[in-house]
Amino acid sequence: MNPDDLLITSLQNPKVKLLMHLKDRHDREKTGQFIIEGYRELLRAIDAEHAIETLFICPELFLGSNETNLIARAKAAGARVIECNEKVFRKVSYRDRPDGLIAIAPQSHRSLDDLQKILSGKKSPFLVIAEAIEKPGNLGTILRSSDAVGIDALIVCDRCTDIHNPNVVRASVGTLFSVPVIEAKGKEVLDWLKKNHIAILAATPSAQKEFTDVDMTVPIAIAVGTEQLGLSDLWMQQADLQVRIPMHGVADSLNVAMATTLLLYEAVRQRKVVSL
Amino acid sequence: MNPDDLLITSLQNPKVKLLMHLKDRHDREKTGQFIIEGYRELLRAIDAEHAIETLFICPELFLGSNETNLIARAKAAGARVIECNEKVFRKVSYRDRPDGLIAIAPQSHRSLDDLQKILSGKKSPFLVIAEAIEKPGNLGTILRSSDAVGIDALIVCDRCTDIHNPNVVRASVGTLFSVPVIEAKGKEVLDWLKKNHIAILAATPSAQKEFTDVDMTVPIAIAVGTEQLGLSDLWMQQADLQVRIPMHGVADSLNVAMATTLLLYEAVRQRKVVSL
Repeated sequence: MNPDDLLITSLQNPKVKLLMHLKDRHDREKTGQFIIEGYRELLRAIDAEHAIETLFICPELFLGSNETNLIARAKAAGARVIECNEKVFRKVSYRDRPDGLIAIAPQSHRSLDDLQKILSGKKSPFLVIAEAIEKPGNLGTILRSSDAVGIDALIVCDRCTDIHNPNVVRASVGTLFSVPVIEAKGKEVLDWLKKNHIAILAATPSAQKEFTDVDMTVPIAIAVGTEQLGLSDLWMQQADLQVRIPMHGVADSLNVAMATTLLLYEAVRQRKVVSL
Repeated sequence: MNPDDLLITSLQNPKVKLLMHLKDRHDREKTGQFIIEGYRELLRAIDAEHAIETLFICPELFLGSNETNLIARAKAAGARVIECNEKVFRKVSYRDRPDGLIAIAPQSHRSLDDLQKILSGKKSPFLVIAEAIEKPGNLGTILRSSDAVGIDALIVCDRCTDIHNPNVVRASVGTLFSVPVIEAKGKEVLDWLKKNHIAILAATPSAQKEFTDVDMTVPIAIAVGTEQLGLSDLWMQQADLQVRIPMHGVADSLNVAMATTLLLYEAVRQRKVVSL
């Protein structure tokens, strides 16, 4: 454990104040920092060698016995460890049931140049494009499913939701740190995909073919858009493959994270058959 | 429009107070009522002939031009229509961007006896069992996907989340009214399924077979459990089919609504091939 000789008992502590401010997007962007809360989320950040600046702990709230090891790893990687009393910790936590671990970390941002490096040597790139997703929970869930199928990268276009929103980290269960996330403008991404011969797949109710009837073994970018309106015309017009997810009920669409997960697993199913 | 000669301008109005109280599960259970907010949600409730007791409207907040028709249909079906000023409506709304429509409605509950009637004459029943799902958003999303694939019914076992929670209605986008929802105790449901020769399919990371490699064209109940722990031993031990969803990343599980959606669409894919 060994916190750095500090036990915070007041919400007036400047580090605690910073933590509270980072709930706000404006403050996250101004400071270039964000919050990682929870054992699994922090474990995945540390596994991915994401820097941790300050780790706040509250041993009374620990749920297991692996926290000591996690804290030691964070310290070894340069984190300052500060203990809070339970009252303070419950105030700074973003959760109903805090598990005694919350950290301030520097944000990291990747561009299309980074993507070029990530894809070098890959035979059949497998990407997801998230255009203007509004709800952090949806973006986080898309990350979780993206991790599960092992995509090469998620490209966030014309971002609407801050990828460093605490609810993205939470819904992603820390896969924000395992899936490379690229941020870029839609037009630039389109040009980049065309130049690199990566097919754009878009789901739309008006498509002729069902999603299980198109070839997803080619280099592919699965593009999904806002909860309300789907993909913008910019993307729809440029899509190489348009597919439909069959709907048999009264509703005319699925939740965006559900639709993405279905498309991702269909690609995995097809790619597995090809590689057998 | 024609509200019943009332314009509410105060939060002290008894009907408005009831609306506020129905946020609370205890009050929902005591009164046997719940809240339906939003155009799409109310449209689906009325389409499904779900009774509406009181419909509160705020024309300043309407987003489209179909509200008049919806209100007329609600009135024709027996609803009392009450207009609120914008300030009051924004207070009673559960949403950041209210669309001027919120209603109080009686709850409806269905049992295994009702399920027997629903399934009469069905060749190959297709059910979902949701055991102790905690988050209303997940239960609502499971309903939305269940509607999309056209299951016969969703059975909520040992319920943890109230199916009449406003976030269930919201995440379901009103499919709470199109998908028959049965409530029953786990043990009773298990006995009922066995008696009716409906196979129980459970997803678990330890299963040998992938979910795309088992036969889902038989009479089937796809069982899913809590976000944290998955299905209880009670269900795992009785499952006729155990399947694995392949995981290629660092995380060891998907969000429960994602996993359910994948299993549902795989069943649809197989059943479509069989019926061709």
